[in-house]
Amino acid sequence: MFLALRQVRAFTDNGLRLIMSNLKEISSVKSFGGFQKVYSHDSSELKCEMKFGIFLPPDADKTKYPVLYWLSGLTCTEQNFITKAGCQKYAAECKLIVVVPDTSPRGCKIEGEDDSYDFGSGAGFYLNATEPKWKTNYRMYSYIVNELPAFIEANFPAIPDKKSIFGHSMGGLGALQIALKNSDKYKSVSAFSPICNPVNCPWGIKAFTGYLGEDKTTWEEYDACCLITKHGSTYPDILIDQGTADNFLIDGQLNPDAMEKVCAEKKVPLTLRRQEGYDHSYYFIATFVEDHVRFHAKFLQ
Amino acid sequence: MFLALRQVRAFTDNGLRLIMSNLKEISSVKSFGGFQKVYSHDSSELKCEMKFGIFLPPDADKTKYPVLYWLSGLTCTEQNFITKAGCQKYAAECKLIVVVPDTSPRGCKIEGEDDSYDFGSGAGFYLNATEPKWKTNYRMYSYIVNELPAFIEANFPAIPDKKSIFGHSMGGLGALQIALKNSDKYKSVSAFSPICNPVNCPWGIKAFTGYLGEDKTTWEEYDACCLITKHGSTYPDILIDQGTADNFLIDGQLNPDAMEKVCAEKKVPLTLRRQEGYDHSYYFIATFVEDHVRFHAKFLQ
Repeated sequence: MFLALRQVRAFTDNGLRLIMSNLKEISSVKSFGGFQKVYSHDSSELKCEMKFGIFLPPDADKTKYPVLYWLSGLTCTEQNFITKAGCQKYAAECKLIVVVPDTSPRGCKIEGEDDSYDFGSGAGFYLNATEPKWKTNYRMYSYIVNELPAFIEANFPAIPDKKSIFGHSMGGLGALQIALKNSDKYKSVSAFSPICNPVNCPWGIKAFTGYLGEDKTTWEEYDACCLITKHGSTYPDILIDQGTADNFLIDGQLNPDAMEKVCAEKKVPLTLRRQEGYDHSYYFIATFVEDHVRFHAKFLQ
Repeated sequence: MFLALRQVRAFTDNGLRLIMSNLKEISSVKSFGGFQKVYSHDSSELKCEMKFGIFLPPDADKTKYPVLYWLSGLTCTEQNFITKAGCQKYAAECKLIVVVPDTSPRGCKIEGEDDSYDFGSGAGFYLNATEPKWKTNYRMYSYIVNELPAFIEANFPAIPDKKSIFGHSMGGLGALQIALKNSDKYKSVSAFSPICNPVNCPWGIKAFTGYLGEDKTTWEEYDACCLITKHGSTYPDILIDQGTADNFLIDGQLNPDAMEKVCAEKKVPLTLRRQEGYDHSYYFIATFVEDHVRFHAKFLQ
């Protein structure tokens, strides 16, 4: 606890921001020589309190490190990845901070916000909603791209111009669409079983209709395949792992074939690995998270 | 699913046992090239259905492997270790099966069985109860030492004479007292933050009074320090990791100093590592589980 406060003090370049954001340490546990912490803060984009996990590698009280952002999938909070993925070992070895936000605003008192596993709470889809009911709080795109990194850089030992992003499923899509539109901000992007083409799958159609309305041209801003078709990509490589025994692949939610096709058409470098027999779970993520961390470390160091 | 059934068929040397025990596959997920599975079966020792996790390393459909048993701590089920410890990577590398039982009988309809976190359900303490209320079901000692290994060896590709055991907290005590009394059965033993001297700590006094009654001489059978004082140990080494920031250490529940003292007195080889700043959680276990798996692999291969 003492260490955490000392770190926050040491790296806060704006004491006022720290106080205004109401940063609170929820937990701090030593892990692989560093610290896995959870904080809450008041988000101005989302107009609610948000939690996030942050792994600080060894010696984060002495020096600044690059930051790797992880975006989780449907139903997750900041806890799933930090307890199950086993990422801390590789973050410690590669000297990376790993930031793990929650997947949506919470407790906004919007009618129906807790009714579905794939819409509302736990299902923010990393977009800025435009439909009247959701547009005040459901601004996860701006939260992830602007507010959270500024907050992390103000309060933790983060090197501002060294950021990468990865995620899983809904968060794999989030990582892809965010990185594709912000190649000036991120050094690299990767994903586990991402929703590659949400405008053409049940999860995407439900979420985009609800958050963005019926005009499908607005949906394309948040679809990895549409973005690549329109704008290509300047990343030297995009790493995607997809399990072949993933039920959601079989159900047509993920569409890696569409991603492969548009990347080939637009000559966008893509390393899509079909991992034989793996499913959609954190056991799959844990198996290959080392490869993803080392992939990003290569671009961040 | 098909693979699992094929494996069970291939390695069952007694079809009747399989049917009588009512073995059911609850889940099967690919992990680090092997499979993390959960089964249930009917335990004759505990007179209830029990679940266990089992990690089968790659090629477990072709060959037999040594088995490492993990005993979990208070409140755990078979899930905590298999989802949070990150052991599968090292079990796959070292070619070990890892079996993770639940921590007590469940649903036995004993009055008060679910009332405490440290007694009854989730708190079997790996002993054979003698008090009338508990003695019919609470026989975790016999379940772990006899019934479960016989069952695993009959139904999975396990080498019968190659077994080791480790555990955490209550399960660290379980691993130690079981290994110390059965050095013919186990090749090695290790523990994370074990309850070293339960006859002298609040958790142990509560559990032993409840399960074994007031005669404290019967308690010593399940106390690692008492067993070493009486019988020494023939193991070439015992590995214990203990975090220095562990609240339960500070509360006097764990007593590694007592263990160190009796091992020194009885010239019992002990590697007790005090890990600076680590707590009692699975983040601590995940950090050092590789060392423990490799420690056991050395004796099992």
